[in-house]
Amino acid sequence: MSVQAELENPARQRLRNVAIVGATGAVGAELIGCLERRGFPVAQLKLLASVRSAGKTLMFKGRPLVVEPLTAEAFDGVDIALFSAGAAISREFAPLAAARGCVVVDNSSAFRMDPATPLVVPEVNGGLLASRPMIVANPNCVAAIAVMALAPLHARNPIVRVIGATYQSASGAGAAAMAELELSTAAHLAGEAFAPKVLPHPYAFNVFSHNTAIDPATGYNGEETKVMDEIRKLMAAPDMRVSFTCVRVPVLRAHSMALTLEFEGQVTAMEALSWLADAPGVRLVNDSENNHFPMPSEATGVDDVLVGRLRGDASDPTGRSLTLFLAGDQLLKGAALNAVQIAEQYAL
Amino acid sequence: MSVQAELENPARQRLRNVAIVGATGAVGAELIGCLERRGFPVAQLKLLASVRSAGKTLMFKGRPLVVEPLTAEAFDGVDIALFSAGAAISREFAPLAAARGCVVVDNSSAFRMDPATPLVVPEVNGGLLASRPMIVANPNCVAAIAVMALAPLHARNPIVRVIGATYQSASGAGAAAMAELELSTAAHLAGEAFAPKVLPHPYAFNVFSHNTAIDPATGYNGEETKVMDEIRKLMAAPDMRVSFTCVRVPVLRAHSMALTLEFEGQVTAMEALSWLADAPGVRLVNDSENNHFPMPSEATGVDDVLVGRLRGDASDPTGRSLTLFLAGDQLLKGAALNAVQIAEQYAL
Repeated sequence: MSVQAELENPARQRLRNVAIVGATGAVGAELIGCLERRGFPVAQLKLLASVRSAGKTLMFKGRPLVVEPLTAEAFDGVDIALFSAGAAISREFAPLAAARGCVVVDNSSAFRMDPATPLVVPEVNGGLLASRPMIVANPNCVAAIAVMALAPLHARNPIVRVIGATYQSASGAGAAAMAELELSTAAHLAGEAFAPKVLPHPYAFNVFSHNTAIDPATGYNGEETKVMDEIRKLMAAPDMRVSFTCVRVPVLRAHSMALTLEFEGQVTAMEALSWLADAPGVRLVNDSENNHFPMPSEATGVDDVLVGRLRGDASDPTGRSLTLFLAGDQLLKGAALNAVQIAEQYAL
Repeated sequence: MSVQAELENPARQRLRNVAIVGATGAVGAELIGCLERRGFPVAQLKLLASVRSAGKTLMFKGRPLVVEPLTAEAFDGVDIALFSAGAAISREFAPLAAARGCVVVDNSSAFRMDPATPLVVPEVNGGLLASRPMIVANPNCVAAIAVMALAPLHARNPIVRVIGATYQSASGAGAAAMAELELSTAAHLAGEAFAPKVLPHPYAFNVFSHNTAIDPATGYNGEETKVMDEIRKLMAAPDMRVSFTCVRVPVLRAHSMALTLEFEGQVTAMEALSWLADAPGVRLVNDSENNHFPMPSEATGVDDVLVGRLRGDASDPTGRSLTLFLAGDQLLKGAALNAVQIAEQYAL
């Protein structure tokens, strides 16, 4: 029986008090949606946000809930809090919540690389939740989506090297970036000037390197470094050699990526397809005849990570490399869905 | 003195009769523009197109020219013809033009991999034009843009492996695809349905695998196979191991790509930057402090290929790999500009 089916089984249900920190953001809205549609056993839902956003009303299961200001005391009586309000908020409030007996699933980068904090994608390393840690880190969106395809392959034939190039959507930079993409595109089509406010470069019909700071020592940007480190941590593969180029494309909410993988032993695309066919949370979209492969338009609003374009890497004559293409919803598997899946493990 | 400066030198000028085949297409318009702004010594310009487009009027140097129907006889008295009307037209008419003493610079794929036909990017292998071949192939747009960065590096430290992922614009599929991107995006923003006509998938705020047929033997699509084969031919490196993933992104007319390169010997990003700094037709855009790197918005309408994000590949501990990002105008260096640069070698 799946986790979700077990949760929907009244015999297993134990209602929980849940809080969402950053309820008014793009991920916050998806967290509310995931709790609702997955039938999470919510006793009471508390929506928390900055003082600026407090007082707003959001709907949960057809009923209005007023957003409350984030304070340490707000976590009293809360069983599980889903944080998505940035690393600074998480660093300050997650320990305060945990000290009050509230489990924290943190969508920020604050604790992801902390050796004491598990970084979890339930399908990949959900076993780390067995010890019921008080703070669990939810990974970077690219890392979460990537490991959905990497882990089932790695389990059969260890992956030794990953080279990735991403096609990242606006949603990773928040609701304001999504709005900027739409507004700037409308302006472009109307032949009007548009000064970017949220992102550092024009976004309409444009592509740009991810806008996180470049590490002068390595040349990799902050996003790439996170993705590379978090993939290794999620896969429990500290020696896996990983390189990513993280790029924003004018897409609203699903991330795509082209990956080239080198395995320890020889591998064929057919074998890899069979390994992925069984993988939970993965949907193969690999219809060569109709040129139908993973696309952000089809990954949007979908829980599964779409995987396809699997082929032997023509640049590796040893037959140990494959190349493939993925698309996954940045706000779902890349953020809210994964956080709620983690919370579900605590509700069993 | 540059080729262009020499051409503008009256002492060197010998006026040529020039024809453009496919004058009414997206590349045709750019061919007219390149001849004009580069001061190509045109005696008479003949615009040729299908019967359907014949009769239209286009401007050249401020004067209207009527598009004529494409026939074999149209090449009588023409010195150089620039073909951009698809491979079938090139296969039929290029030999007929050449037989009439007209040099053909062919932008289609018809002759690119023909061992008897040189495939030329002047900055890379312009020496092949010394023998004055009657038909010269202009490369695939991705290949032409890629080799602008690859060749100057390869000359100093041989490149043994290339792994590329592209971010290709609408213009590669022609003017109708550019229009479809704009129309479908406007419809999306208005919340209206839009049925794709030119491209097989929705293009507004979407990304999809290049819509050329997949080779069932390799899993690579037609575009990828062209890029991989043509890079090897352009670089005169038949053993170079190359793998590309070709992807369309919602950008109007400039292609970008993320490349990971493995060299024969060790190499640093600093060395590579110094080799590229001197390369003709390359502009370094590598400002880490301001997060300013190659973008299609800044490559659009620009002759140079923009190169940046140069860094040592974190997935290769031997120090022999680099990764970088390029952007180049698909209609200029990827098509019309390169064709006119080839023609210029014949006008000297």
